Amino acid sequence: MNKQAIHERIANLRSTLAAQDLTAIIVPSADPHLSEYLPEYWQARLWLSGFTGSVGTLVVTADFAGLWTDSRYWVHAADQLEGTGITLEKLAPGQPNHIDWLAEHLQEGDSVAVDGNVLSIAEQDRLLNAFDANDITLITERDVLTEIWTDRPALPAAKLYTHDEQFLAQSAPSKLAAVREGMAEAGATHHLLSSLDDIAWLTNLRGADVDYNPVFLSHMLIDADKATLFVDTDKVSEDIAQSLKDSGITLADYSAVQDALSALTPDDLLLLDPSKVAVGTLSKMADDVGFIEQMAPSTLLKSVKSDADIDHVREAMRQDGAALAEFFATFEQRLAAGERLSELDVDSMLIDVRSRQPHYVSPSFPTIAGFNENGALPHYRATPEKFSYLDVAEGEGGLLLIDSGAQYQNGTTDITRVVGIGQVTAEHKRDFTIVLKAHIALARAHFPDGIASPLIDAICRAPLWQAQMDYGHGTGHGVGYFLNVHEGPQVIAYSASTPKERAMKEGMISSNEPGLYREGKWGIRIENLVVNTPVAKPTETEFGDFLNFETITYCPIDTRLIEPSLLDQTEIDWLNNYHSQVFAELKDRVEGAALEWLTERTKAI
Amino acid sequence: MNKQAIHERIANLRSTLAAQDLTAIIVPSADPHLSEYLPEYWQARLWLSGFTGSVGTLVVTADFAGLWTDSRYWVHAADQLEGTGITLEKLAPGQPNHIDWLAEHLQEGDSVAVDGNVLSIAEQDRLLNAFDANDITLITERDVLTEIWTDRPALPAAKLYTHDEQFLAQSAPSKLAAVREGMAEAGATHHLLSSLDDIAWLTNLRGADVDYNPVFLSHMLIDADKATLFVDTDKVSEDIAQSLKDSGITLADYSAVQDALSALTPDDLLLLDPSKVAVGTLSKMADDVGFIEQMAPSTLLKSVKSDADIDHVREAMRQDGAALAEFFATFEQRLAAGERLSELDVDSMLIDVRSRQPHYVSPSFPTIAGFNENGALPHYRATPEKFSYLDVAEGEGGLLLIDSGAQYQNGTTDITRVVGIGQVTAEHKRDFTIVLKAHIALARAHFPDGIASPLIDAICRAPLWQAQMDYGHGTGHGVGYFLNVHEGPQVIAYSASTPKERAMKEGMISSNEPGLYREGKWGIRIENLVVNTPVAKPTETEFGDFLNFETITYCPIDTRLIEPSLLDQTEIDWLNNYHSQVFAELKDRVEGAALEWLTERTKAI
Repeated sequence: MNKQAIHERIANLRSTLAAQDLTAIIVPSADPHLSEYLPEYWQARLWLSGFTGSVGTLVVTADFAGLWTDSRYWVHAADQLEGTGITLEKLAPGQPNHIDWLAEHLQEGDSVAVDGNVLSIAEQDRLLNAFDANDITLITERDVLTEIWTDRPALPAAKLYTHDEQFLAQSAPSKLAAVREGMAEAGATHHLLSSLDDIAWLTNLRGADVDYNPVFLSHMLIDADKATLFVDTDKVSEDIAQSLKDSGITLADYSAVQDALSALTPDDLLLLDPSKVAVGTLSKMADDVGFIEQMAPSTLLKSVKSDADIDHVREAMRQDGAALAEFFATFEQRLAAGERLSELDVDSMLIDVRSRQPHYVSPSFPTIAGFNENGALPHYRATPEKFSYLDVAEGEGGLLLIDSGAQYQNGTTDITRVVGIGQVTAEHKRDFTIVLKAHIALARAHFPDGIASPLIDAICRAPLWQAQMDYGHGTGHGVGYFLNVHEGPQVIAYSASTPKERAMKEGMISSNEPGLYREGKWGIRIENLVVNTPVAKPTETEFGDFLNFETITYCPIDTRLIEPSLLDQTEIDWLNNYHSQVFAELKDRVEGAALEWLTERTKAI
Repeated sequence: MNKQAIHERIANLRSTLAAQDLTAIIVPSADPHLSEYLPEYWQARLWLSGFTGSVGTLVVTADFAGLWTDSRYWVHAADQLEGTGITLEKLAPGQPNHIDWLAEHLQEGDSVAVDGNVLSIAEQDRLLNAFDANDITLITERDVLTEIWTDRPALPAAKLYTHDEQFLAQSAPSKLAAVREGMAEAGATHHLLSSLDDIAWLTNLRGADVDYNPVFLSHMLIDADKATLFVDTDKVSEDIAQSLKDSGITLADYSAVQDALSALTPDDLLLLDPSKVAVGTLSKMADDVGFIEQMAPSTLLKSVKSDADIDHVREAMRQDGAALAEFFATFEQRLAAGERLSELDVDSMLIDVRSRQPHYVSPSFPTIAGFNENGALPHYRATPEKFSYLDVAEGEGGLLLIDSGAQYQNGTTDITRVVGIGQVTAEHKRDFTIVLKAHIALARAHFPDGIASPLIDAICRAPLWQAQMDYGHGTGHGVGYFLNVHEGPQVIAYSASTPKERAMKEGMISSNEPGLYREGKWGIRIENLVVNTPVAKPTETEFGDFLNFETITYCPIDTRLIEPSLLDQTEIDWLNNYHSQVFAELKDRVEGAALEWLTERTKAI
């Protein structure tokens, strides 16, 4: 990024602020769907600041420009912001965020602009809470950037397609009926959905408007009789239009959602998730329409996979495991042959082996291949401008962390493995083994059916805590079914709140990914996907129902990095059992070097 | 309880409701201080219903009378309510409570009375939330019972006394200064305290107005310059009055608090804990006085014990341990000699041995001595009307659960042990050993400094969950220093919410008390008190600070009830280490049979 360009953009922005009599502007990383991955059209924060991280909020006033981002991105952001005049503001628990900063530095009568199209209702509430007490005005009705961002990219135009019928267990009308049941339970007459994965799930359609998530830009408005899909109709084939019509779903233009909402009356009651709907989407709605603010019914329905879905995902996992066996075999051979490989080579090799699997669509997120100190940055991404070779000095060693995944029509994968390069040390092994203990502790845990997911995180972390170690990210996120690799409502993270919406239910798929990061040295993370499953053969019934995890990622965990004396027999049994299962699942899908590699790496310890 | 009397009281109440044009009355188990143990004057729910449990809410309408209480009391309540015309309404997670019932059964325009003097602000908020939507009026300004409860007991009149100076680490003025710092941080001009343990802590005074908790009925109003203690001045000696004056605390009559609050102006900002202040206390305050609703600063200050406090508590624990060794030695001797003993004998023997220890004041809660099926009721209390003998048939066996504690001037104790009577079975041992595994898991856990206490509960329960077992109560509560045996803010219970106020801090004392209850068979609970302590000799520093628990209860855990094959070496090591510490702490304090018992019961397994 040209840092001079950043200076000019910020200067232009300041002129516009002055001309519009605004004290400050907030530029979040968001779109009208509160998505994780943004179309370029909504990457205003990146365009203005040059910071490429996925999370960050820019605040600009006449004499200040600051970007708030969390610890994952501090190193990266410091580098990208250097020389731009934008200061890095470190977002951390207990530290002031951009709202606190504004509340402290602004004066009574000041005005703050933020584009309501990229501001969630929940976030607007937080801003108003902070600003009202200080008599600061929040302005959400205009997009200040329109004037200065003259070469703004167009909205994406990828065509919609149907999720392959052979992988579908439930029809769109049946899903729609289930959502309407949820609306009726909540007492709602209408329901607005802006979250793209909810809409893709509900319609059984997919798209390619953003990277990694197979979704399409749209909103949906549902009442007891009607369901309207607001989408760029140029993206919709006649077949799909017909199939939507057959499912009772009317098509309307993407930009017509505000007008549709303006037809609601005070007799209507609109259900929406305030963290998943933008203020701007409601801009034309009458003030006296009532709201029910809660999680969308589809969010839970989508997270609870059917047996048929899970069967398909198991097959996708076998495909992914076979691809990984091929990758690791080739990777080790090339390294052994003395070839100099880089983090970028790992990325391209992974995409290559996966793309040859059936039903492959795309990566499910940007590959993280981080060698040594790069692995210690949990969201590191090697780029052609900045990457490392996997070089170690004679007699020395290092750790390569590889976190990658794919979208297949029959499932979404996400796996992290750590590979030793050269001669690994006792310290490497100790760290790896303690993370493995944490992984196993969660993998084999039982927990009460319906417990709030954050409450079981301590079971995973206990072995790390015992060694006075911890990691700064969550232990597990929900995973979609050929949908977003990150989905809710469950999140296995002790930093999260514990509402009843986060209850663990049979059929949810989550990641199990404890880690350990030594700044400047190496990072370790061991990640498998797991399914919430009733405990088989209950031995007790008087204490309620229990769930446990079925691990459905099939890929060896490198036993050469294990210090066996740190494992107890239960842990060794789990590992050997896992490896014998991995071998059984993959042995008929690989051959030659990959089969040799699989056989070797799944041997019992 | 005479059930005919209950019928008459409810009938009288219904007449009064009709005369006052009220549809319903709510009678909670509460006093103006939202205390756990109530003076008889405020035991209206007991007087009206005959139900003696500590928690329960009575609702009476013209044609309905129901008592809501939780699972601990269902058996007990069913028994006591039988034939009274009052139905038992089972309070359980996800089930309707009395508020839901009223919202469902009452009509628009109906009126519900509840005495504002025993209704917390937080509970009033919940009632108003439910009633406003249905146009039901809440009336809190009158005590409907006044007319019918003609023989209502007087308020207690026990004299105040000072907490023995030798056990005090901080003066009242110094505590008051710390509270004022907390007020300043919150931006409050005034602070109202109604919670009796907070006031006892702050003033270094104690009382005997209720059983088990050494507190006295009072309120306190604090501003930057003044602090007023509202208390029946007849209870205050001249010496104490002078000492309060020297500490900058003014005396006023107990009933003068409402008038004092009526002097507040809209310029004032009153800090109070909405769950610890009754609506009635604020009845004369102007509507335009601002509030800050948060935990009282003293609640956290009180829970974080100083090193000197903890030293005193350790000594109280040695006294308690010596008393228990004496009890168990005698108890086992008498049983062995063929004497027929009952649960009531256990209670009186325990009070006898403890009362001979220095600085003894009283039991810290009603002893729970529950044999077999009685032990399965977590809050069982044997009474002269209803108790069990510890009888087992030839060749059979049972389990006796004993949960007891004492108030000493140098510390408050709370311990649960389980004793085998006769020939215990493999099933007894398996259950006991799994509970022991849970106890040890928490006892030896490390956890991040400042973690919300409910988040570590899963570490304790994991061994039980693994065996598909669980228990319906919390794992740990805070314990006062010669104060209430139950105190906040920490609570180790996964059912609790996880606000930052529940953060674990160095110096807090909690219980560690996992259990297992087989209805109709037996109950098991193993309870020690533990202190939050920084991990000694940190081996890692880059991952933050960690706490662990120092166990400070010194009493053997019966190894004859253990199935050793279920313990791993870490657990055996913990147990043997604990027993060698118990022996070391107590060996010079007991003699004869008690020393023999101690020596035998602390042998390594």
